[in-house]
Amino acid sequence: MNVKEEALKMHKENRGKLEVKSKVAVNSKHDLAVAYTPGVAEPCLKIKEDKEKVYEYTFKGNTVAVVTNGTAVLGLGDIGPEASLPVMEGKALLFKEFGGIDAFPICINTKDPDKIIETVKLIAPTFGGINLEDIKAPECFYIERKLKEELDIPVFHDDQHGTAIVVLAGLYNALKFINKRLEEVRIVINGAGAAGISICKLLLLAGAKHITMCDRQGAIVEGEEWLNEAQKEIALVTNREFERGTIGDIIKGKDVFIGVSGPNVLNEEMVKYMNNDSIIFAMANPTPEIMPDIAKKAGARIVATGRSDFPNQINNVLVFPGIFKGALEIRSKDISEKMKLAAARGIANLISDEELNEEFIIPDALDKRVCIAVAEEVKKAVVD
Amino acid sequence: MNVKEEALKMHKENRGKLEVKSKVAVNSKHDLAVAYTPGVAEPCLKIKEDKEKVYEYTFKGNTVAVVTNGTAVLGLGDIGPEASLPVMEGKALLFKEFGGIDAFPICINTKDPDKIIETVKLIAPTFGGINLEDIKAPECFYIERKLKEELDIPVFHDDQHGTAIVVLAGLYNALKFINKRLEEVRIVINGAGAAGISICKLLLLAGAKHITMCDRQGAIVEGEEWLNEAQKEIALVTNREFERGTIGDIIKGKDVFIGVSGPNVLNEEMVKYMNNDSIIFAMANPTPEIMPDIAKKAGARIVATGRSDFPNQINNVLVFPGIFKGALEIRSKDISEKMKLAAARGIANLISDEELNEEFIIPDALDKRVCIAVAEEVKKAVVD
Repeated sequence: MNVKEEALKMHKENRGKLEVKSKVAVNSKHDLAVAYTPGVAEPCLKIKEDKEKVYEYTFKGNTVAVVTNGTAVLGLGDIGPEASLPVMEGKALLFKEFGGIDAFPICINTKDPDKIIETVKLIAPTFGGINLEDIKAPECFYIERKLKEELDIPVFHDDQHGTAIVVLAGLYNALKFINKRLEEVRIVINGAGAAGISICKLLLLAGAKHITMCDRQGAIVEGEEWLNEAQKEIALVTNREFERGTIGDIIKGKDVFIGVSGPNVLNEEMVKYMNNDSIIFAMANPTPEIMPDIAKKAGARIVATGRSDFPNQINNVLVFPGIFKGALEIRSKDISEKMKLAAARGIANLISDEELNEEFIIPDALDKRVCIAVAEEVKKAVVD
Repeated sequence: MNVKEEALKMHKENRGKLEVKSKVAVNSKHDLAVAYTPGVAEPCLKIKEDKEKVYEYTFKGNTVAVVTNGTAVLGLGDIGPEASLPVMEGKALLFKEFGGIDAFPICINTKDPDKIIETVKLIAPTFGGINLEDIKAPECFYIERKLKEELDIPVFHDDQHGTAIVVLAGLYNALKFINKRLEEVRIVINGAGAAGISICKLLLLAGAKHITMCDRQGAIVEGEEWLNEAQKEIALVTNREFERGTIGDIIKGKDVFIGVSGPNVLNEEMVKYMNNDSIIFAMANPTPEIMPDIAKKAGARIVATGRSDFPNQINNVLVFPGIFKGALEIRSKDISEKMKLAAARGIANLISDEELNEEFIIPDALDKRVCIAVAEEVKKAVVD
């Protein structure tokens, strides 16, 4: 049986993957009286007096809503809220397995960004954080911005920031290994959607100075008419040499290629025109922008992909459990840029100088130390 | 340590009562590939093709939202959505412990009924059923009616119907024991709020012919100016002898008193004026309308309360796990009146003729057989 068949069988046999359970035993009338009436009135009254006590007496402080409307699910596109539920259950499962966080899928049946914002705000009392997931661009930018402004709990669009953080972590280590500096390397990011733009912003924040973004129509250059709002904004702070052309032109003389685009957009020829010791993050799924063996043959020094069957897997699971764990543990009202940088450092630092090599720039997706390390760094970043 | 102190300690130590867990193990890359990417795309695609498959491949079909806005929580009143969370966690816990159902608290931060309706409709894709809880009257009527009309999953306001069903179950057995017929007995219901009116409607549906309702202002009589909308409606089908006066007047010559009102509204004198073999359900919490020993001394034959420390506890936990379990198992689009009557019969029938006595008209709240029996009766009612 292949993975597809196995996945169908497993989901059907278990009727999904999540369950809600009690943390306390209820075997006697006494237990009932403590967990439910009349005892439960006491924590209610404490919270009524002081709303912050909801973090002490309920599961809110460890609970995250995994919110989607199903408009940009995996590589499947707009499949709707019901069809997105298996992914959201999976995401919630990863929150628990890796972060010990109680996450619950909220699949919202609308494409209207304002209705999504309103809904999340109205149901927020139950949750200690909001993880936005698989909502299409550009709506996802607006939804995240408004919710961050209007809610006093952390809001995090994982497709954007989770990816950006783990890319930065991998890049820190890749550059360390080949002894280049982030401030100096020339970077091209191919794919100027939500993930690409978020990666770009975080790399700039981390100190990168020379980034050019590309999309299907070619390089993002200030003043181009076809740019959308988010691209217009990013054009002001990238590509200050005003490079024009397609990815095949732009990749020439670059040190780093970061792909969040589509299958096989890179070929050997293009990689050959990159600088020495080039770094390629080919993260299109399931088929990367270029297969690692081809990239290596063409001269790439370090190759990472989104896949678990090649070395250097760039996987968001290294980020979201830890960053939420850290934020929740200190009851941060937000996930700040500083916390994102700290998370990337936390991931990168788990690999010692001795362990670091071309095929090991990023910890394994199943490495349970990562979540704890990320949470610690994130908390330190807030306290400092 | 008393129950209050113990409840505070327990809630604080455990940070609430619920957790979200995975039903499947995720210990290897292979497990991840089956539960998450790339395998998870397969159930997504199946559901995209046929939305009904969401019941096969996800946890929706066994998942219930416990929805409140915190405006009528226990006897505490309008304490808000945050302060209601301990109760909603408790309710969800009971759903799991008694019904094996995965229930999750949704505490909505608004008092606007239309916003509550909109929110529940928008988040419905995750859920197989909606349990409305502790929302104040009269908004709760409107919210339930609209949601029943507009959603294709069961919607059930437990404060109304759960209470009504368990009262009917107890009354079936009490009347059987004293050998009176529901069609013939004269009933007074004291307290004409959401629960009282719902009890009244279900008793009428079950065959009761002589019911008078009372509220603080006195008997509900057709044409009274002070009646609210729900009371006006019920006035058309109750009290056809146009009795007027307070509960002290109305209780005279009655066989059954059902109280969902307040502490100590009945006294010995009043009970003495009831018919022989009188039945008293004094369900005000924590202090009943009359204490059982006083009611008995005054001549009552059978007394039930809402409390676990007296015999004959009228407790909703006998109803909601089973009625949802039955409805979910057959994917009923609704919880119909027929299903409610069946649930009451299911509860009542668990007590055999040999077991039935003054102090045992209703199964124990912890009796795990009840949920299964209720679910079976409810399913039969739909199939028949």
